[in-house]
Amino acid sequence: MLATFYQGKRSFIVSQKQNESPGKSEVRIKVAYTGVCGTDMHIFHGMMDQRVNMPMTIGHEMSGTVDQVGADVVGFTEGDKVVVRPLDDRGARPADKGNNHICRDLKFIGIDSPGSMQQYWNVPAFTLHKLPADIDMKLAALCEPLAVACHDVRRAHLQKDEVVVVLGGGPIGLLVAMVARHYGGKVFISEINQSRIELAEKMGFSVVNPLKTDLVSVIDKETDGFMADVVFEVAGAQPALDVMTEVAGIRGRIVMVAIHGQPKPINLFKFFWKELQLIGARVYERADYEEAIDLINSNHLPLTKLITDVQPLSRIQQVFESIDSNPEGMKVLLNCQE
Amino acid sequence: MLATFYQGKRSFIVSQKQNESPGKSEVRIKVAYTGVCGTDMHIFHGMMDQRVNMPMTIGHEMSGTVDQVGADVVGFTEGDKVVVRPLDDRGARPADKGNNHICRDLKFIGIDSPGSMQQYWNVPAFTLHKLPADIDMKLAALCEPLAVACHDVRRAHLQKDEVVVVLGGGPIGLLVAMVARHYGGKVFISEINQSRIELAEKMGFSVVNPLKTDLVSVIDKETDGFMADVVFEVAGAQPALDVMTEVAGIRGRIVMVAIHGQPKPINLFKFFWKELQLIGARVYERADYEEAIDLINSNHLPLTKLITDVQPLSRIQQVFESIDSNPEGMKVLLNCQE
Repeated sequence: MLATFYQGKRSFIVSQKQNESPGKSEVRIKVAYTGVCGTDMHIFHGMMDQRVNMPMTIGHEMSGTVDQVGADVVGFTEGDKVVVRPLDDRGARPADKGNNHICRDLKFIGIDSPGSMQQYWNVPAFTLHKLPADIDMKLAALCEPLAVACHDVRRAHLQKDEVVVVLGGGPIGLLVAMVARHYGGKVFISEINQSRIELAEKMGFSVVNPLKTDLVSVIDKETDGFMADVVFEVAGAQPALDVMTEVAGIRGRIVMVAIHGQPKPINLFKFFWKELQLIGARVYERADYEEAIDLINSNHLPLTKLITDVQPLSRIQQVFESIDSNPEGMKVLLNCQE
Repeated sequence: MLATFYQGKRSFIVSQKQNESPGKSEVRIKVAYTGVCGTDMHIFHGMMDQRVNMPMTIGHEMSGTVDQVGADVVGFTEGDKVVVRPLDDRGARPADKGNNHICRDLKFIGIDSPGSMQQYWNVPAFTLHKLPADIDMKLAALCEPLAVACHDVRRAHLQKDEVVVVLGGGPIGLLVAMVARHYGGKVFISEINQSRIELAEKMGFSVVNPLKTDLVSVIDKETDGFMADVVFEVAGAQPALDVMTEVAGIRGRIVMVAIHGQPKPINLFKFFWKELQLIGARVYERADYEEAIDLINSNHLPLTKLITDVQPLSRIQQVFESIDSNPEGMKVLLNCQE
């Protein structure tokens, strides 16, 4: 079987590997597609070399079919279409207060243990979610980032007809926008990249380029001064942090989706003055995956527009390099059987 | 009647003034006691000269009795003991989404219009809350800051047996701690001032001096690693902002009580990683006042320990100066009939 290995210094090797049988309580998956995530790019850039045990097969956004079932596995049989929820929460403790998806000793499969950028992949059976038999396997590979978006929207307690501002129109921002709109939110996206703006507009979203138009004035005008009920900070940049407390209306909820590696200045006075809430959101829970699968299967979201390229697994090095050189792409999938 | 006026430059004048009849829908209150609040000190220090229309009678923490009732006032009669909820929310708009207590055009009585540091005070009747006939009028003057604490705890959705860390043991911090403990919270206070530490300990609280002991280690040990469910940031200082995201456990709620005039660095990564929440809290709602009155009347809180001095209104200048020179005092009341 073909497998890829990140070996540091912006480089992958592609090589043949023994196809191993699944262990007890494990399932071997024949991987169909694997999406390249921002975290994978982060690894490629050497930012996570301390954490990644090289040479390492990475990848965690995927779809596939059950190829072989290990001992003690119930509920899955060969040929089942599946996705993996790549959270190994077996180290959860009482002090995690039931929040096993973010337990202190969480292992992320595809970062802390081998991932899906290979032809076959052995994973613990408890990570699997079964897919409908007729689902589109390319779209199914979007299940993981879509579950992130479902989790973000759920953390916001979004109500129908609420005004939503999504700061950042990359893949996660667009997925959040899609889910928020699906549940009745009136969504505005703030994005500065012209090709991303155009893509979001093709999806039917109202988009503001805050470098050209004052976002706060637009939202003020469009909402008759009510401003945003919910803001998603997905941009990860200081201007987004500055504007999030302005664009939120009274008692607005701001969901922190972006990962800010360093402490950043925040206008705490506005949190006090308008009784705002900041809500942290990380990965997903079981219910978010089930919801994401339902949403993909229902075909209600413009997910196909998000997939801008599909390349053979064997071209992984070129794929990662091209994502760096082409910031206009959105989601690139690797076909793990080519 | 005697009235006091802030005239800028750290100075008050005390003078006789015509005692006016209450207007339509107004009530004239014979003020019993007025507490000196941090905001009053802020005004005294000249920090709010842009907002305060000098010469101005300030003051908003008070107790008193109804002295005369204006036209169209129902439900109040001469001799009723009352407190004023000093929020003039008559400018509330639909865009305030029902949160009239923090409506955009809120006028704060005692800052934006004359306050209670005088013998008699005319206020709109809708600001009044009736007190039980046998209530202690000195304690009743603590109703306003206690309502702040009730609001803060309510915003936290505190549950019985949750672990609470209060950062800052000044008057509001201690009131928050009292209310949180009353509702079943297991409360720790972080404070660096020795006399405040001793006062909090006299009230039966576990107190940590973070300059001498590592607060995070103490909470970790005391909670078997569960850490705090709720953190109240009442200190208004960067070390408190730094520690609040450390001391909060998974999905911890951090209530922002302190007023931070400038943007401050916040560890947003911890909000993401532990799915923390930051909850803004400002002033109070009607229910918070009713709760504060009940708590004062029940005598369940060690409120008397908070009142460190009572001085005649005529000594207002000396009182404000002494608060500046004696940071060990807690709550000073002005006796408005002396």
